[in-house]
Parts: sequence; structure tokens; C-alpha cells
Amino acid sequence: MKQNIYDNPTFFEEYRKLRDSGINYNNFVEQPAFKETLPDLTNKKILDLGCGMGEFTRYCVTKGAIEVVGVDISKNMIDVARQHSSYAEISYINSSIEELKLPIGYFDVVVSSLALHYIKDYSDAIKKVNNCLKKGGTFIFSIEHPIVTARKKMDGWITDENGDTLYFPVDNYQEEGERTQFWYIDGVVKYHRTFSTLINQLIINGFQLEQLVEPVPIKAGLDAMPKIKNELRKPSFLIVKSTKLEGRDN
Amino acid sequence: MKQNIYDNPTFFEEYRKLRDSGINYNNFVEQPAFKETLPDLTNKKILDLGCGMGEFTRYCVTKGAIEVVGVDISKNMIDVARQHSSYAEISYINSSIEELKLPIGYFDVVVSSLALHYIKDYSDAIKKVNNCLKKGGTFIFSIEHPIVTARKKMDGWITDENGDTLYFPVDNYQEEGERTQFWYIDGVVKYHRTFSTLINQLIINGFQLEQLVEPVPIKAGLDAMPKIKNELRKPSFLIVKSTKLEGRDN
Repeated sequence: MKQNIYDNPTFFEEYRKLRDSGINYNNFVEQPAFKETLPDLTNKKILDLGCGMGEFTRYCVTKGAIEVVGVDISKNMIDVARQHSSYAEISYINSSIEELKLPIGYFDVVVSSLALHYIKDYSDAIKKVNNCLKKGGTFIFSIEHPIVTARKKMDGWITDENGDTLYFPVDNYQEEGERTQFWYIDGVVKYHRTFSTLINQLIINGFQLEQLVEPVPIKAGLDAMPKIKNELRKPSFLIVKSTKLEGRDN
Repeated sequence: MKQNIYDNPTFFEEYRKLRDSGINYNNFVEQPAFKETLPDLTNKKILDLGCGMGEFTRYCVTKGAIEVVGVDISKNMIDVARQHSSYAEISYINSSIEELKLPIGYFDVVVSSLALHYIKDYSDAIKKVNNCLKKGGTFIFSIEHPIVTARKKMDGWITDENGDTLYFPVDNYQEEGERTQFWYIDGVVKYHRTFSTLINQLIINGFQLEQLVEPVPIKAGLDAMPKIKNELRKPSFLIVKSTKLEGRDN
């Protein structure tokens, strides 16, 4: 059974409030850096794995994409995405990444924003992406940073008796696997993987690494959300840009 | 003025004791993993940047290398290396990496073990390595892990009142640059760089990333040096294997 926290009513309501407010790490840290890594999307066919409420699929169309497929495990999310989208270029599939069937060598660009840390079998997901990409195509994904997912007790920054932030605790780094966290609801499961696993699995499965980004907050974020300055002390996200090797068979 | 801690008599004496004992992180964590990443060295020309007392240069000859050049800033280290080495294949140069002059497109393999975190200008060192490598040649280096070098107050693990290890503190991650530490002597300077800087500078300067390793202790290390089990909780080292792109001009 794949985890589907976004169809939990409590989680979905809180998450939607967070995204609708505009005051969040996505808007101020992850998405600006993610968008900077994109190639020219004009006339491109794009797959968005974990498309959520469809903000990014719509963004792709405004940048000239001719076909965008958004995939999400959550029916709630896909329903919102469809309500907001009147673009003929976009279609949505309500499926887990694990159960998804995709055409071979079809897409120019595959993106996945903050979804792959929910996937148990990372290597299988990478193989799937490689199969559905054209040779030379681009795969860009973001995930929670290994520094953040490492410690099994995922309770965040260590503070002193005055509540001042001291440092971020790392532990259990080499023990990959499930991490369970409270995030609006109990029992949200993420998967910790080391840097080396994240990058080596890409390379082993036919990608060439192009760029890594550990994003820092944009200026507007520092103004609107003061605690975001802690991003300079510890990265929350890792963005990985890669290319499907030309010599790779489909 | 380049830092040359290994010619400080106090430091050198203590460091030599540590290496001669055989009970150290080099032997139990870093070197076993480093050697596993090596290509076949038969008939290869090899450059070792920061060769220290020459253990690795000698290892290369036993693996079939036809020419090995060891470079170290420390005259003490180079003197020991020369005393221990009677191989005609090995020559030593007493120079900083920064001031070193190298032939263009000459070496098959460049290695550097735990030296580049002492170098202020990482990008310049990478360019120098690229220039002296043949196209398709291999560059393998190890450094202290960014998780370890990040925090300006470099005082290691956080322990509780009983001395039990709680977690490893990360801070100041996005502030690259000098970190000063006590290691046998005061004022040992290392340079912190983020994971993304370490990898992106390689790619920008003409390398293709092949493999990352965050080494774990070998069994003998866990037996001989019990505290080394903490390596499973936090990586101390990062090993990076890359290839000079074929299409790259010298």
C-alpha cells in the first residue's frame, strides 16, 4: 500500500492552507531554485511526477511546453489541479509513481518536486524515468536534503533554554530507509538516502549528472518568513539536474 | 603564504605517531574505500597531490604503475617518503599544490587523499588537475565531508552529561570558507565547501562525475578502534571519482 497522506482530510486541509498562503518553503526556497535549473521548455513534452495541485504543470505551459502530463497519487490534489487548469496541453493521471505506466523514450523533460523522498524504491523510480525520457532528455528532481532526513528522531533544530537555535542534529546517516514524522498528522513516512546513493543510482541507471543545487532563500522569503534565514545554517533541499546519456538504449 | 602544518615539529611528531600506529581513520575508513574506487593502474602514469609520507605512491607501484609523482608541501613528509622509497618509478616534488607546475595532458590518473580541504582556491586546483590529465583520465579525491566542515565551532559530537554521544551538529552550512581547528596544534585551517560547490566545480571544469563514496569503517577498524562506529552515524569523508571529458581541450 503506497502512502497517500494528501488524501487524509486533516493533512490535505492544512497543506492546502499552507500552499494557498504563499508563505512557505516551496515559494521562497525550493521553487525559485528549481525553476532556474530548467532548460528551455518551448515545444517540449514534459512529465511532472508528484504534480500536486498543478502549479508547475501550468507554469510549463506558460513557458511554451506543448504537452504536460501531471501525475499524483492523491485524488484530492489531482481534483484541485483539474479545477485550476483549462489548458489543452495538460493532462493529469491519478496514480502512484510506482504503479505508473509510461511510454518509452517519449518525454523531453521529467521533473519531480519534493516527491521522491516518499518513494520506497528510489532505484526503480530512476529506471522508470530513464525509460520514458528521450536520449539527451533532462531529469530534474528535488528532495529533502540528506542532512535533514538522516536522524531517526526527526524533531528538527536543537535550541537552548531561551529557544534560540543552536545547531541542526545529524545522526543515523548511514542507515537508509524509513523515517516517520509528525507533519500535520502522525505517521508521515519519508525515506532517507545518503548523498552517494542519490547520485550513484542516477549514474548507474544511465544519467549524467549536470548540476546540484542546495537552494538558499530568496529576498522576499527572508522578509515574509523570518525563520527561513535558518536555511543558511542548514540546507533543507537538494535539487539534482541530470541528462539521459545519449548512448543509452531505451 | 600556504599553510604547512606538517612542517610544525609538534604537529609532525604527533601525526607521525598516529600514522605509524596504524590505528587511525585513514587505515580503517578512508583508504580502503579510496582504493576500491581505483581503476587498473597497470602501466599508468599517476600523480598524487598531497602524497604525505608516500604510502600511496608505493601502493601504486605494487599495482603496476610505471610512473608515480608524489607532491607535498611538507619537507618533513617528503623526506620520510624518500627514505621509504627505493622504487625507480617514483619521484617526489616538495611543493604546494598552488605553486606546482605540471605537464599538460600527461597523467592517466590523478589522486588526492584528504588534501583539498586545505586548499583555499578549489576551483583553481580542479583546473590544474584537468590540465595535467589525459582525456578520459581519472581523477579521484577524498576530502572531509561537508557535514563535518560546516560548523564554524568545530568541536565535534554533542554529548550528554554522561559523555554519551547524542548527535553531530551542523551549522553555517552555506557560509563557505575558512574553518580553524585545534588538531595537535592551534590554528589548523581547513576550507568548508558545500556539497554542490564540490561537485558543480568539477563538472564546470571539464569532468564527468562517476561515483561518490561516503565510506564506512572496515570490520578490523570496528574491532581495533571502537569509537569508529560513530562513522555510521555521521560520515567523516567524501570520496569523489570523476573522468576528464573526452571532448575537453587541454
